Amino acid sequence: MKKELYQTPWNFLGLPEDVSTPSSRGWLLPVPYEATTSYGAGTREGPAAILTASRQVELYDAELDGEPAMEYGICTPPPLNLVHRSPEAMIQSVEEAVADLLSGDPRPEVLGILGGEHSISAGGVRGLARVIDAASLVVVHVDAHSDMRDEYEESRYSHACAARRILETCPIFQIGIRNLSSGEAAFLRGCRSVRTVFSEEATDPQGRFLRDLAKFVRKKQVYFTVDLDGLDPSIMPSVGTPEPGGISWERMLEIARTVCSNAARVPAFDVVELAPIPGFRAPDFLAAKLVYKLFSYSLVGNGKANSKRSSRHG
Amino acid sequence: MKKELYQTPWNFLGLPEDVSTPSSRGWLLPVPYEATTSYGAGTREGPAAILTASRQVELYDAELDGEPAMEYGICTPPPLNLVHRSPEAMIQSVEEAVADLLSGDPRPEVLGILGGEHSISAGGVRGLARVIDAASLVVVHVDAHSDMRDEYEESRYSHACAARRILETCPIFQIGIRNLSSGEAAFLRGCRSVRTVFSEEATDPQGRFLRDLAKFVRKKQVYFTVDLDGLDPSIMPSVGTPEPGGISWERMLEIARTVCSNAARVPAFDVVELAPIPGFRAPDFLAAKLVYKLFSYSLVGNGKANSKRSSRHG
Amino acid sequence: MKKELYQTPWNFLGLPEDVSTPSSRGWLLPVPYEATTSYGAGTREGPAAILTASRQVELYDAELDGEPAMEYGICTPPPLNLVHRSPEAMIQSVEEAVADLLSGDPRPEVLGILGGEHSISAGGVRGLARVIDAASLVVVHVDAHSDMRDEYEESRYSHACAARRILETCPIFQIGIRNLSSGEAAFLRGCRSVRTVFSEEATDPQGRFLRDLAKFVRKKQVYFTVDLDGLDPSIMPSVGTPEPGGISWERMLEIARTVCSNAARVPAFDVVELAPIPGFRAPDFLAAKLVYKLFSYSLVGNGKANSKRSSRHG
Amino acid sequence: MKKELYQTPWNFLGLPEDVSTPSSRGWLLPVPYEATTSYGAGTREGPAAILTASRQVELYDAELDGEPAMEYGICTPPPLNLVHRSPEAMIQSVEEAVADLLSGDPRPEVLGILGGEHSISAGGVRGLARVIDAASLVVVHVDAHSDMRDEYEESRYSHACAARRILETCPIFQIGIRNLSSGEAAFLRGCRSVRTVFSEEATDPQGRFLRDLAKFVRKKQVYFTVDLDGLDPSIMPSVGTPEPGGISWERMLEIARTVCSNAARVPAFDVVELAPIPGFRAPDFLAAKLVYKLFSYSLVGNGKANSKRSSRHG
Amino acid sequence: MKKELYQTPWNFLGLPEDVSTPSSRGWLLPVPYEATTSYGAGTREGPAAILTASRQVELYDAELDGEPAMEYGICTPPPLNLVHRSPEAMIQSVEEAVADLLSGDPRPEVLGILGGEHSISAGGVRGLARVIDAASLVVVHVDAHSDMRDEYEESRYSHACAARRILETCPIFQIGIRNLSSGEAAFLRGCRSVRTVFSEEATDPQGRFLRDLAKFVRKKQVYFTVDLDGLDPSIMPSVGTPEPGGISWERMLEIARTVCSNAARVPAFDVVELAPIPGFRAPDFLAAKLVYKLFSYSLVGNGKANSKRSSRHG
Amino acid sequence: MKKELYQTPWNFLGLPEDVSTPSSRGWLLPVPYEATTSYGAGTREGPAAILTASRQVELYDAELDGEPAMEYGICTPPPLNLVHRSPEAMIQSVEEAVADLLSGDPRPEVLGILGGEHSISAGGVRGLARVIDAASLVVVHVDAHSDMRDEYEESRYSHACAARRILETCPIFQIGIRNLSSGEAAFLRGCRSVRTVFSEEATDPQGRFLRDLAKFVRKKQVYFTVDLDGLDPSIMPSVGTPEPGGISWERMLEIARTVCSNAARVPAFDVVELAPIPGFRAPDFLAAKLVYKLFSYSLVGNGKANSKRSSRHG
Repeated sequence: MKKELYQTPWNFLGLPEDVSTPSSRGWLLPVPYEATTSYGAGTREGPAAILTASRQVELYDAELDGEPAMEYGICTPPPLNLVHRSPEAMIQSVEEAVADLLSGDPRPEVLGILGGEHSISAGGVRGLARVIDAASLVVVHVDAHSDMRDEYEESRYSHACAARRILETCPIFQIGIRNLSSGEAAFLRGCRSVRTVFSEEATDPQGRFLRDLAKFVRKKQVYFTVDLDGLDPSIMPSVGTPEPGGISWERMLEIARTVCSNAARVPAFDVVELAPIPGFRAPDFLAAKLVYKLFSYSLVGNGKANSKRSSRHG
Repeated sequence: MKKELYQTPWNFLGLPEDVSTPSSRGWLLPVPYEATTSYGAGTREGPAAILTASRQVELYDAELDGEPAMEYGICTPPPLNLVHRSPEAMIQSVEEAVADLLSGDPRPEVLGILGGEHSISAGGVRGLARVIDAASLVVVHVDAHSDMRDEYEESRYSHACAARRILETCPIFQIGIRNLSSGEAAFLRGCRSVRTVFSEEATDPQGRFLRDLAKFVRKKQVYFTVDLDGLDPSIMPSVGTPEPGGISWERMLEIARTVCSNAARVPAFDVVELAPIPGFRAPDFLAAKLVYKLFSYSLVGNGKANSKRSSRHG
Repeated sequence: MKKELYQTPWNFLGLPEDVSTPSSRGWLLPVPYEATTSYGAGTREGPAAILTASRQVELYDAELDGEPAMEYGICTPPPLNLVHRSPEAMIQSVEEAVADLLSGDPRPEVLGILGGEHSISAGGVRGLARVIDAASLVVVHVDAHSDMRDEYEESRYSHACAARRILETCPIFQIGIRNLSSGEAAFLRGCRSVRTVFSEEATDPQGRFLRDLAKFVRKKQVYFTVDLDGLDPSIMPSVGTPEPGGISWERMLEIARTVCSNAARVPAFDVVELAPIPGFRAPDFLAAKLVYKLFSYSLVGNGKANSKRSSRHG
Repeated sequence: MKKELYQTPWNFLGLPEDVSTPSSRGWLLPVPYEATTSYGAGTREGPAAILTASRQVELYDAELDGEPAMEYGICTPPPLNLVHRSPEAMIQSVEEAVADLLSGDPRPEVLGILGGEHSISAGGVRGLARVIDAASLVVVHVDAHSDMRDEYEESRYSHACAARRILETCPIFQIGIRNLSSGEAAFLRGCRSVRTVFSEEATDPQGRFLRDLAKFVRKKQVYFTVDLDGLDPSIMPSVGTPEPGGISWERMLEIARTVCSNAARVPAFDVVELAPIPGFRAPDFLAAKLVYKLFSYSLVGNGKANSKRSSRHG
Repeated sequence: MKKELYQTPWNFLGLPEDVSTPSSRGWLLPVPYEATTSYGAGTREGPAAILTASRQVELYDAELDGEPAMEYGICTPPPLNLVHRSPEAMIQSVEEAVADLLSGDPRPEVLGILGGEHSISAGGVRGLARVIDAASLVVVHVDAHSDMRDEYEESRYSHACAARRILETCPIFQIGIRNLSSGEAAFLRGCRSVRTVFSEEATDPQGRFLRDLAKFVRKKQVYFTVDLDGLDPSIMPSVGTPEPGGISWERMLEIARTVCSNAARVPAFDVVELAPIPGFRAPDFLAAKLVYKLFSYSLVGNGKANSKRSSRHG
Repeated sequence: MKKELYQTPWNFLGLPEDVSTPSSRGWLLPVPYEATTSYGAGTREGPAAILTASRQVELYDAELDGEPAMEYGICTPPPLNLVHRSPEAMIQSVEEAVADLLSGDPRPEVLGILGGEHSISAGGVRGLARVIDAASLVVVHVDAHSDMRDEYEESRYSHACAARRILETCPIFQIGIRNLSSGEAAFLRGCRSVRTVFSEEATDPQGRFLRDLAKFVRKKQVYFTVDLDGLDPSIMPSVGTPEPGGISWERMLEIARTVCSNAARVPAFDVVELAPIPGFRAPDFLAAKLVYKLFSYSLVGNGKANSKRSSRHG
């Protein structure tokens, strides 16, 4: 079989086989799980849509002036098996897979996860906590919703409880919040381990909260979770509850740079809740580009691009 | 408020308020539950699509030469609350609601249920079994899939186990099956309480199986469950796994007439798995019309139309 | 029937039954009328799409720090009957319904109307004028189009004549206009009872026109009509003629706050011209959120939130 | 400008300029009118969709073994202006246009009309009645709905009254009816000038009604009106109320051949109610092919193909 | 990495890794090429849609009573590289790939190809002719179009010339044709190496042409090319020019069985021209199921199922 | 035929027949060519979508205070024939058509071209170069992609090589670039005849690059090519690769004004790569409005509106 006649295999970014192997520094695990969504079904088709779109993303990154993925490599394992015994069982399965992957040999330096619904993030955080010094762990959380309910539709593992479950493991810095219940508002007022940056502050051109964010992550190991509905619906309509008034593409990148250039490490992140709209590809493409940026910022994090930028919000 | 200026309220068929009350002989309960679907999300939007389409269905039924719904009445309660603690908990909640409704006062003579995914049917059957002489209960099941798996994706309450769970309560007569696993095929060969009519037989113009069906339901109380993917994809593409080679509209009505005119009673039925395709209304409309037919056949079941027909397959 | 097992009834925001009754302070009347639209059909499906989306809107409003709808209540009557004898007859029917509702007992303090096409607004304004001191009435009008044609496609009651018909009843303050005919431009130059804020001025970050708007509504009773195509197509593509260069979500809220906190009262408003795009929910959701904001600003209008804000453009 | 570099102009079938002129034997008038539709908007986009699809239809017709359109020619005038003063005014405008075109010089031998909603057919029939011996006129009507209401939503010119209005001019032969109100059923029982072939009879493989149809049209001048919802939704889902159980493509052609080969002439026909579904082209293509067949059967009607066939149902 | 936690890799049918290897008896090559399509773009997305849908196809085949793919295995190489120098260059590239794969070691017993547009079939046939005794080669061709043009839009390698190019290599048996030009009709009348079964004959319940087909393929090596628009648009609307009046699912399977049980071998086949409609999955699913059937019929071709059936048309 | 009963003919903006003739000052040539697109098919349907949308654009232009198209006129010839022999042959055909049209009699002062894919621009530039003093020719190029590859998928005439091919004829000023390969980046660093304004600079509120642009075009004849993916995906999602971070509507107009008011002439422009999303019309409408603005700025270029503006960036 003459290799040159064929396209590259099915993996994130369509990388050549030799830079998408178990010894790649980045791994990207699809978790097409959806079971507790209330409205706007379809997040289970998010990972496939992001992978498809990623094959059109140019490898060359002008900001970093190179093709970073060709250097660090990204491995795309097959999707995690679904478990529908209960939402808790699925979270448990994610936890096990993440802990297994991050302690395996070879193992990724940075593990990305593609949702699927937001509830899986609790599994990701717990899995990470099992393999690092848990005291050094913090979570940065981009979202339109606070996700601080203790229970929703009789499940403690609903997508609407994602952040509350994470909080049982470590502190959280939330950005972009513009939809919460009165119960969540009351909870947040009394809770010291969450810092919530509401959307008005998050979209302010000055971006003063970025200093606090830099401080929050300094010397920490960060799990970075991006619920795509944190972005503005004008650029990201493909989510279940597209709340007006969200984060722009440029601000999203500023947040990511701030996290990656100030933290000790970002060993894991997830990008969740893409519910692709048939025929409407722009959001899938944006999500794919964001995932690539997150790998590059976290894996080339102490390189020139980021060190230059880190002085900005340092 | 001058009533005549306004449209009829939001209920099945858009009935006037006085024929859509708790004392109506038919009730239609929406259960927009979806949690274990593997492919082709969207059954949670099925009930709303059927209700919307039903408002365009003409009340006059030429076959019965009248407006039957104006006589028996249909009440449309609000959708059942979702429970996402686990699939089993949701089935349990359906069971309780069905038992509660069928033993309430006033209560429906015939209770229809709109899914949502097929897993809810087990709850419906169990709820019915609690309020009638369980020995007289049988299930008639239209579907493309045998749904006889004992467990799927680690859940015993997956949509793929729907018929297997029902079988724990009573015998089943399956029609239209054209997709099953080798495990299910083996199980069916050894199981005496299921009669499976595969799609070749089910679509045969002669329709000989209708005699057996008439015999199966005679003197029984029937729970009739229709997974819409049993129909042919040319008329019902709005399902998760649209298998070619299914049942036509005319045959579907023959099956329904055979059941309703031969059974002692049909106290409950469900129509499940509609996953509406945006902009494509024909399947929603067909589903609405089918639900209306099921109410009319079961509530006017010993009247002229059906007695005439029953001689055909009697 | 155990209430706690079921979802809330089909009404705006999915409110519990006891806060969505004829004694609610707010009423929301759907008018799914569409007959004169030239391009991009579908506004007749706007009300249903907004009601569907509204059930996902969080009741808690962070700006007002509470669940205002739980206090004032919103009643959702069934949609107004369609009249297709002529556009004028439909406008007449809207006029009668609005006058009837606003003089009934119980009656709404604030009546919202969901279109449907913009031509219905003339009926709303006339109905309001019949039950208040007509001299105190003014209209605030957000739109991309001036809608000042005297006749269009042989009808004086076309959507393209909406503002011209309103002008026969009271003065208008138009915001966001960026599409008009030369005839309309000539008419506006000679007309003293209209103030037109073109889109360049309307989207200017300074927002100086908001002072004039505050002055225009002071001590007046306002009918507030929002043609959704006044918003920018990036956040509101679901309209018939999506003109680039429109109003942002933040500016829309500033306009609404200015009106509600400076007027004597806002007894009626409408939100019209949503033509839902299948599968694309973000615009429906935005429209639902806007309707909720309009109720809250007008019904809690002299409360803390607005009085704080009113000083800004006072 | 070198002609050979360019595609053919925008007309039905994409005919060369010299066979699409006012002296063509066939004319096809688009009437994108939609004002009284209750559900499933979009018929105003029907004519454009049919014209677009027609450009892909092969000119060669195997049944007639030739490229008939190249011989008789088809002229496509621009769409009729919309009149939104009232539905009656629009019908009046269609009547005038049809009478004007059919008595002009040059004038079409066969005038096709593309709807738009069904209400326009009454205008077409009246226009034709003005220019021929009205006593020789009959209408053949394919539809799922009887359309025999005297008034609907306060208009006597609603699409739901289409056949009732036509009946004021001449007798009707209806085929494929499967949805009517009890009032219409009563009316039909008492009405001698309508023959109604319900869908069970219309889809029966034997097709016995075709003899009666042949007799009905013999020596008559026929206006042939096809509401596309008469066809089965499996091949024609792009209509407002897609009723299951309709006419197949092959039966539709049999009906058309029977009409054209037995009537004295078919000076006018219409094909109405296509509401194109975005992205779903098969129904548009079928409608275009049907229009081409209607022109060929009526203009080459006494030629070999039809005379052969006429013996079949003669 | 614990294998049991993950889904199977991305391949046709989602087969386990050990039955989807270069030593599998079946290979399925995606060729997402589209360059000369005139109308209804999108065939380049056909292969991905079929692979996605195939993961939902049940491995168990009731007709063959087993999981045949688990025995013969199917390998899914990455898609062939696109060549846009000219259509001819792409055909050449397909030819080379096919010849290379079929003479490689290991090599497939049966090579399936997923289009992409129909023009690629000429490459497939030529590639096959290079590695077998070319005199024993025949092509069976299911299609709505004759594809016998010598040139189209200035290219001899357009999709509209697919069969004409193939004819330069070997005889053809065409089934389902219902759209051709007068030039093609003339050509076919004079051409002895093509047998054309038009759609009327192809859809006749008797199916007499199947005897001729059996004779045509006897002792031959068959390249079987299926342009999906040969099927009826009610089950296969996702094609560029969906002609009414096509082949049913049951007839398609009869054709496939006749070919595979009578030919000496079927070393290669293709399934082309799927242009997926966003949100509409039934056609993708049908295409995936057809591909699976083609592998099973050709690889288990002398086994019990087929030998039983071959007596029917033998 | 009474003209006043009919809509205006099918042409850009729906102009009356007497201002859309060969003697119009503007001509708009549709070129629905698509053959080398890798992802996101559909640009061949772009021209039809823009023409359809243009009929809803108001002729009155508030910026220019008049109905400029009624004065200069725009003629819309039928689409250019497709040539599928090879991409180069199609470019050649565009070149010939453009040279032919621009040297014909009558001929357009400004020739607009509607793509289709970007590869056609090279033909447009070459055609223009044949009929003017080639030394005075420059190209202004709005795009997300540099399009500077020398070859792509084995074709030198791929859409991905559009700017590279143009560069063989004259210098280029690129605006909005945010996606390029490392090879292109290297090429650009060494190339003196291209000025590339990356998206960060292009979207900067100050817009300093506009001075350089004014200088670049001064005394030159400009071919202006707009690949719509240069715009931000929030307003222009209907493109193959919608890169986040693009140009706003207001900035696009500033660029166009700068070009048209500073250049000696703008004898030709193109707007390419619209791939319409079914049901989503806002982008089509924006593209139509942009084309109208380009005609007005270039044909009324030395009039009041532009001279006022030219001082801004002069």
